[in-house]
Amino acid sequence: MHREIERKFLVRELPEQLAEFPHAEISQGYLVSLDDGLQVRLRKSNESYSLTYKRGVGNVREEREVELTPAQFDALWPATEGKRLEKTRYGIPLGDCVVEIDVYGGRHNGLVVAEVEFDDEESAKNFQPPDWLGDDVTGDPRYSNQLLAS
Amino acid sequence: MHREIERKFLVRELPEQLAEFPHAEISQGYLVSLDDGLQVRLRKSNESYSLTYKRGVGNVREEREVELTPAQFDALWPATEGKRLEKTRYGIPLGDCVVEIDVYGGRHNGLVVAEVEFDDEESAKNFQPPDWLGDDVTGDPRYSNQLLAS
Repeated sequence: MHREIERKFLVRELPEQLAEFPHAEISQGYLVSLDDGLQVRLRKSNESYSLTYKRGVGNVREEREVELTPAQFDALWPATEGKRLEKTRYGIPLGDCVVEIDVYGGRHNGLVVAEVEFDDEESAKNFQPPDWLGDDVTGDPRYSNQLLAS
Repeated sequence: MHREIERKFLVRELPEQLAEFPHAEISQGYLVSLDDGLQVRLRKSNESYSLTYKRGVGNVREEREVELTPAQFDALWPATEGKRLEKTRYGIPLGDCVVEIDVYGGRHNGLVVAEVEFDDEESAKNFQPPDWLGDDVTGDPRYSNQLLAS
């Protein structure tokens, strides 16, 4: 089990030469996505496929993920119709962390959100965001992928 | 997508020499199991592993299933804790159909339920159960696997 500890921020100013950083084209859809945080998500990230189970809310959640074959993904993907989103995810190194910047496409075109994942809650609490990050929107439902996909 | 059309019966009298029929030891657990019929189920049947997505209620449901590797199954299985059941499933040929008899173990030890799956609703409606089957309990929530696993 992986316990996810993360903070989410708006982005005041995108890093220069964003496309030079590692990035992935992500399509994700939800088999299940409930208000209480229970979700079963399918994701295609570049040429990798995965299924992720999450439970709980806030910045600490239970998470279990498995890689899927393309055939497994294709068999389940139609069930996510109407609960999908597309984004490009960039990984920006920052000290011991990586800031993941999600630039949404499709009907959320233009929305940009950054996430930072931490090893423990102490590190999450102590994190000092750089100037180019904006408001802390951790836990704000308007920026949850579940809501953005619905 | 597979649309599941089935009827469920109690069993008045088990077929003789039940153990001679093909059968599988099944362990299943639910990642998600909701009152509206939405479920994501993990199943180990003998040495086969699968994940099944179901949506809807009644005798016609949407169903999508993929085979899993043992490693994929093992990674997700812990999340089903508290939502599991065990049964032995026997397949009894009957005309063009197979009657699947589920003999439950664990805390439902002794419960026996039979299911027959059909190609279409007409066949389901016209099915004449043999004498050894008992009451039709199709759609009766007391005999749903979701409830039995909770």
